[in-house]
This record gives sequence, C-alpha cells and structure tokens, in this order.
Amino acid sequence: MRFQAPESLSEQIAQHLGQRIITGQLRPGERIQELKVAGDLDVSRGSVREALLILERRHLIEIYPRRGAVVSQLTPELVNSLYDIYIELLCMLGRKVLEQWSGPQLVGMMSQMTAIQSLTARTDEQNSESTEAIIEAGFDVMRHAYRAVDNPFLEETLENFKPAVSRTYYVALESFRGEIAETRRFFKLLADAAGSGNAVALEAAIREFGEHQRSQVLSILEH
Amino acid sequence: MRFQAPESLSEQIAQHLGQRIITGQLRPGERIQELKVAGDLDVSRGSVREALLILERRHLIEIYPRRGAVVSQLTPELVNSLYDIYIELLCMLGRKVLEQWSGPQLVGMMSQMTAIQSLTARTDEQNSESTEAIIEAGFDVMRHAYRAVDNPFLEETLENFKPAVSRTYYVALESFRGEIAETRRFFKLLADAAGSGNAVALEAAIREFGEHQRSQVLSILEH
Repeated sequence: MRFQAPESLSEQIAQHLGQRIITGQLRPGERIQELKVAGDLDVSRGSVREALLILERRHLIEIYPRRGAVVSQLTPELVNSLYDIYIELLCMLGRKVLEQWSGPQLVGMMSQMTAIQSLTARTDEQNSESTEAIIEAGFDVMRHAYRAVDNPFLEETLENFKPAVSRTYYVALESFRGEIAETRRFFKLLADAAGSGNAVALEAAIREFGEHQRSQVLSILEH
Repeated sequence: MRFQAPESLSEQIAQHLGQRIITGQLRPGERIQELKVAGDLDVSRGSVREALLILERRHLIEIYPRRGAVVSQLTPELVNSLYDIYIELLCMLGRKVLEQWSGPQLVGMMSQMTAIQSLTARTDEQNSESTEAIIEAGFDVMRHAYRAVDNPFLEETLENFKPAVSRTYYVALESFRGEIAETRRFFKLLADAAGSGNAVALEAAIREFGEHQRSQVLSILEH
C-alpha cells in the first residue's frame, strides 16, 4: 500500500469540475471559463488551468488554443470509440491477470468478487445509490487486477478512461437500475473464468458485458 | 485536414523538455525544477507547471506532491510494461484499419508504404539521421491509419505513448542502425497483409516487429 499524499489544489478542482461533467450538470459542448471558475471557487487562474489539463487527460474536456475549454461531446460515434478502446484494454487486463496469477492474489480477487455478489444481492431495491455502489464495485475489481498485473501504463490509461465511462453510465442510469441481475451474472462468469484460469471465457465475459453496457448507453443516446 | 493552431507556450516548453528527455540529455530519475526551467527559458512558473502536466500525460515524467517532477525511470520492467500496452494498441489499430478499409484509404496507405520502402532503400549508409527518418516514417503510417479508423481515444492514447517509445529507441539507437533490412521486411509484410485484408497476418507482423524492437531495447538496458 503506497502512502497517498493529499491531493493538490488543481487535482481537487479537477475532481469538482469532473463530477459536474460526469453527472451532466455541465453539458456536452458547454464552455468552461477559467476566470469564472477561479472566481466561483476562490482559487488562482493558474490552478484552474492545471485542473483543465487534468480533465483533458481524463477525456472530459477539449482545450482549444484561444477558444479555451469545452465539455467533450457525447455522441453515439464518440461512445462507440470510447467503448472500443475501453473494452480492448479491459480484455488485456483480464489476460494479464491470468498470466500473472498467483495464490494470494487469486484469494483476494475471489473474495472481492464474492463481496460484490452479496452487495448486488442486498441492493435489489434498485435506488440510485445502489446503482452507483455497483459501478464502484466494478471499478474495485479493476483496482485489484492492477495489483496483480503491475503495469503502470495500463493502469493509468484505464484510470484516465474511467471518468468518461462513468459519464456514459450516468446517461443511462435509468436503464441501469434494472441491471442488477445482469451485473451479478457477469461477476459470476468473471469469477468462474478467473478461478479456473480460462482466458477465453474471461475475455468472452468481459466483452459481452462491455457490449451490453455500450448498447444500453447507445439506446438512450439514439432515441 | 484540420487547421492547426500555433502551439501554446506550455506545449512549446513541453516539447523542448520532452526532446531533452527522449534523447537522454535529461536522465531517468533527474529532478526537473520549475523555478530553474522558468528562469532558463524566461517563462512564467505557471507555464512550466502546465508543461509538466503535459509531459506527465506523455509518460515522460512523474509529478509527486511536494517533491515535484522527476524524469521517469527506464527499467527493463517499465520497458516491458510500455511495449505490452503499445503493441496491444497497435494491433487494435491494425484490426480497425482492416474493418474500416475503403478504396481511397487503401491507395493512400499503400503509397505511404511504398515511399517508406524506397526511403529505407536509399538510406543504407545507416547514419543516425536515416535511423530517425525510419522511425518517423513508421509514425507516419500510424497517422495514416488514424484517419482510416477515426477513433480519437485510440489516436490520443497512442500519441501519448509515442514520446516514451521514442525514448526507448534512442537507448538502442546504436543497435537500430543495423535494422534497415528488418524494417523494410516489416513494412513489406504490413503492406501485403493490409493489401490483401489479412487480419491475422497483419497482427502477426505488428506483434513480431514490436517484439523485435522490445528485445533490442532490453538487450541494451540489461547488459
């Protein structure tokens, strides 16, 4: 466990703005004005500029010379591009976990999976907090996998995609409420494939679940 | 062709420092001091901070709260992690090119390939400029592929890995001088596989060449 230093001011500003983009309070195409943010949050303009670079890295905004920062669009084409690379990287993560697998890591991951399954079992009432808890539980499995794989480039790249992926979940939050059974089924497939070291089944499970989520998001965006 | 705005000051500083890291003038583990850079280049400290965030995104430095910026390490483990994800993303790019393939793009790509092959034929004298020209030619093929695939996330992720990959080429520059025949063979395989739409051969060619470069770099780092 690495010591986590408290977050820098620019990181805190990035998380504040990022959360507003993810939840849709800041809309696709909306301009983010440095001076206004600096005034609202009572921080320096320099810290806001740094926060914007962090948000650009996390695929939530685009920065144009002279025009400034704009919240990224959320079109079906962009959602498709995002899911294409995200699913690919998750499959790579899954393959690498199986390559690197060792006893203690297996036990840790399996107990994580079991915890998620009991969580999803407990939250059948399907309120929005339980939906978020399930999304977070999925991200927890990824964090566990990072430790097994130990590839800082893969971890960083996936972490940088998570905010944009979370944003697509929020678009489809209404549809995601009925998804608890589907999620539980996925984690069961994942745990079985990982436990038996079946790389083909693992990749198939990741791909199927990723495609399922993609189609949920697209069906909302396209109607 | 999109209009390219002139680069921001922070981007210019990032490119200046990045080039020094890639070519090894700034060494792995070396600290980059904001104040010193600001003084040397006669720019504001804020612009340097922004440049450092850009370099962190390009995997050339790490920024630690309070300790500041440090040039990324270049260990065999990190080179392996880098090539693992880079080769994977190149294979994805290759697969997507074949899925998106259309007549005019095919013609453009094939003429690019031919230009590279005649370039490598002309530069058999093997000076360091010709080595760099070959590396750049390879990156040109990637740029061509981006246009066919049109996935901004894949493009951005690969572009962000290029500086760190270039840095590993510089480590192995001496060994790369004998590589012109190998490179030509690779581009021939790539052109043939792309031209005939053979996805399996395309992926095999990318993987083989990527693994070859990885082993060249590792053999320098490990001896």
